[in-house]
Amino acid sequence: MSKILTGKNTTQKDVIAKKAAVLFRVKWYKATSMRELADAVGVEAPSLYNHIGSKSELLQVICFKVANNFTAHLSGVENAAGNIVGKIEAILRFHIKMMLDNFDEVFVANHEWKYLEASSLDNFLNQRHNYEKRLVALIEKGITKKELRKHNPYVIVLTILSAVRGLEFWQRHKRNIDPQALEDTMVSHLLNGIIK
Amino acid sequence: MSKILTGKNTTQKDVIAKKAAVLFRVKWYKATSMRELADAVGVEAPSLYNHIGSKSELLQVICFKVANNFTAHLSGVENAAGNIVGKIEAILRFHIKMMLDNFDEVFVANHEWKYLEASSLDNFLNQRHNYEKRLVALIEKGITKKELRKHNPYVIVLTILSAVRGLEFWQRHKRNIDPQALEDTMVSHLLNGIIK
Repeated sequence: MSKILTGKNTTQKDVIAKKAAVLFRVKWYKATSMRELADAVGVEAPSLYNHIGSKSELLQVICFKVANNFTAHLSGVENAAGNIVGKIEAILRFHIKMMLDNFDEVFVANHEWKYLEASSLDNFLNQRHNYEKRLVALIEKGITKKELRKHNPYVIVLTILSAVRGLEFWQRHKRNIDPQALEDTMVSHLLNGIIK
Repeated sequence: MSKILTGKNTTQKDVIAKKAAVLFRVKWYKATSMRELADAVGVEAPSLYNHIGSKSELLQVICFKVANNFTAHLSGVENAAGNIVGKIEAILRFHIKMMLDNFDEVFVANHEWKYLEASSLDNFLNQRHNYEKRLVALIEKGITKKELRKHNPYVIVLTILSAVRGLEFWQRHKRNIDPQALEDTMVSHLLNGIIK
C-alpha cells in the first residue's frame, strides 16, 4: 500500500480516490473538476479538502497504489519458494485480476500517469522501469534453468504485459465470458508459449 | 488498397497521407492543422487542396488503407491451402510487420479512427468487427480440427491482437532488438501457447 494511504484519513481518502479513479477513466484526469468529484462523493466541494489537498494528490494516490500493489506482489513472488514457471503464472494471474477487479485504478495508472507532478513522475517511472527489469531477470533465470525456451526475455515480457493490458478493450465491450475462463485461457496461452 | 487511393492523384495523395500519418501520430489528429501539413509536405497550404479535399479525408485514407490491407491479407490466408496453424502464423507475422513497417498509419488507425465522419466510422468499425469475427472463426476451426488446444477462441484472438498492438510501446522507446528476432520470439510465444 502507498504510504500516502496510511494517514488517519485513510478510509475516507480511499473512498474519494475510488470515485476519482472512475471519473479520471471516463472523463480523463484533465477534464475532471473537483466540483464533479464532490458530486460523485456526495459532499460539498469545500469538505473534499478536509481529506485531500488537490486533484493532483488524488492522481498520485491512485498511481502509487497501483504501482505499489504490483511491486509488493512481485517481491512476494520473488522471495517465495518454487520454480520460475510457477512464479510467472502467479504474476500473470495477479495482473489479470488487477485488470478485472481494479479496472479504474489500473486504467488511470496506465494512461494518466503523465500528469503526475515532476517529482512523483520520476518516482513512478523509475518504479515501473524497475518492475519491468525484474520481470526480464525472472525470464532470464527461467531460460538459464532450462524451464523456458531460449528467446529474447525483453520481448517475452513485452508480449505478456501487452496481452494483459489489452483487457482494457475487453472491459469496454464486455462479452459473456466467465472471468475465470478468461484468466485460465490467457494464462495457458502465455505460459505454454514459453515453457520448454 | 483503398479505392480512394486509386484516383489519378494517387502518388501525390499517397505522399501527403504518409506525412499526415506522422503528424496525426505525433501531434494527434485534432491538433494538426492543414498549415502544418503543408509545411511537412513542403508546399503552400492552398496547393494541398489540389490533391485532397480536407483533413478529414486524409484520416479516412489512412484508416481505410490500413483496414483494407489487413482484410485483403486475411482473405488471401483464408483462401490459401495449408493447415490452421500455418494460417495463424502468417497472420501474426503480417500484423507484426505492419506494426514495424507502417507504424504511423497503424497507430493512427488504432487511435484516431474515432474522429472519422459518421458514415466512414460505421464502415470502419464494421470492417474491424468483421475482421475479428473471421479470426475467431479461424481459431474455432483449428480447435475443431484438433490442431489447437480447446480454449475460448475470442480470448485467444484478444490475447494475440493485444500482444501485437503492444509493439506501440516498443516503438516509442526502441531497444536494440533485431526486428526479425522480435518477430520470431512473438510468433513462437503466441503460437506455441495454443498449439495442441
